[in-house]
Amino acid sequence: MPRFFSDDIRGEYIYLNKDDENHILKSLRMKNGDEVIICDTNGFDFTCEVQITGDRIRCKIVDMNKNFTEPSVDITLYQALPKGDKMDMIVQKCTELGIKKIVPVLTDRCISRPDEKKMAKKIIRYNKIAFEAAKQSQRGIIPKIENIMSFKDAVDIASKDDMTLFFYEKGGNKLSEINYDNINSLSFFIGSEGGFDTEEVNLARENDFKIMSLGNRILRCETAPIAALSCIMLLTDNM
Amino acid sequence: MPRFFSDDIRGEYIYLNKDDENHILKSLRMKNGDEVIICDTNGFDFTCEVQITGDRIRCKIVDMNKNFTEPSVDITLYQALPKGDKMDMIVQKCTELGIKKIVPVLTDRCISRPDEKKMAKKIIRYNKIAFEAAKQSQRGIIPKIENIMSFKDAVDIASKDDMTLFFYEKGGNKLSEINYDNINSLSFFIGSEGGFDTEEVNLARENDFKIMSLGNRILRCETAPIAALSCIMLLTDNM
Repeated sequence: MPRFFSDDIRGEYIYLNKDDENHILKSLRMKNGDEVIICDTNGFDFTCEVQITGDRIRCKIVDMNKNFTEPSVDITLYQALPKGDKMDMIVQKCTELGIKKIVPVLTDRCISRPDEKKMAKKIIRYNKIAFEAAKQSQRGIIPKIENIMSFKDAVDIASKDDMTLFFYEKGGNKLSEINYDNINSLSFFIGSEGGFDTEEVNLARENDFKIMSLGNRILRCETAPIAALSCIMLLTDNM
Repeated sequence: MPRFFSDDIRGEYIYLNKDDENHILKSLRMKNGDEVIICDTNGFDFTCEVQITGDRIRCKIVDMNKNFTEPSVDITLYQALPKGDKMDMIVQKCTELGIKKIVPVLTDRCISRPDEKKMAKKIIRYNKIAFEAAKQSQRGIIPKIENIMSFKDAVDIASKDDMTLFFYEKGGNKLSEINYDNINSLSFFIGSEGGFDTEEVNLARENDFKIMSLGNRILRCETAPIAALSCIMLLTDNM
């Protein structure tokens, strides 16, 4: 059944935006009484009957269910900004895999350092990718891609999570060695092409982050978050 | 240290191809006595001293070590051919993650059905991607991308492995429920955009393949092999 996101719920009706209405009318050619699923972006799926009047649509709620795709742990990726369009793939794949939030981070070795205006454009683009990927993978929420922040600010915020994993190219704990019991919020850091520098690793250690390895093979900076998130989902029983 | 692949070993010397020689001379600007690592594509790394005569190079072996990046299990991906260039990413990422072999498979729901000539070109391209990714990720072998085969042939060959996992979009076992003890060769099947049809799943069942799930979220057909391989590497203690 076609899926949409909307939090515009008024009484027993949900309203969609113009793009989705057009999609229903012109691409899907739906008729009065056809059913869609509308996710409220807050973890609930509503089965609705479309009611069409001219080119306007309202969707009558006929059933409501908890969305069953959301993982039991809130996971945030702190990703050092990579070069080119690698972040696009990271956002898309991590959304499919169940990420809650992605924070681009500026580290010492980031080669890509866009100015404020370019970065603002990128953030809009990343959120659009997350939205599309959330729809396609049937997520119950739309992951938020936050504005870029300094490494220090990222460490401060991440340290509030129940657990923070810091993936370091020079090695650390194995993912399977960690105990994930009673963890509700988990964040993880991935470096850019050049990895992290010593001072950054030291700051991570001072904040009790777990220094982690992804094994002996050198993973590209866009492969590492996808591999790490897949394993974290598995180890927290969310895959 | 710069890394190369070559199995042209004669006595105490290893010889590189013209491209690598040019790379050493023109990009890296190496001098007599500088060191490189040459992997024999068979799991061994040789530390060598370059000896330059004009524009020719021979590499004198000074040390030899077992390459430490190769996983303990031989893993083959049987991937139903996806549309567009998605296979490029699958080949690159799975090579980084430690795959041994990738076999493109033609299933009932494959939308992409290139003719023989086009497919031959694609296979050359995939092997080139695997070569580059193997070098970059410091693999001890170069994964082989085989020619495309029918689903039935793929099932016949995969059934010879110690274990075959068959990822089915309509659900199955969790990866964490399987016992991987004493498994030396493992293969896994991933569908194309449309997934697998019922007859294909039945044939997999008849061959005692384990029908598997990757969780509740819908993963794209290029995300699924990367997520599955990451988890398999973790569960076989290779990450």
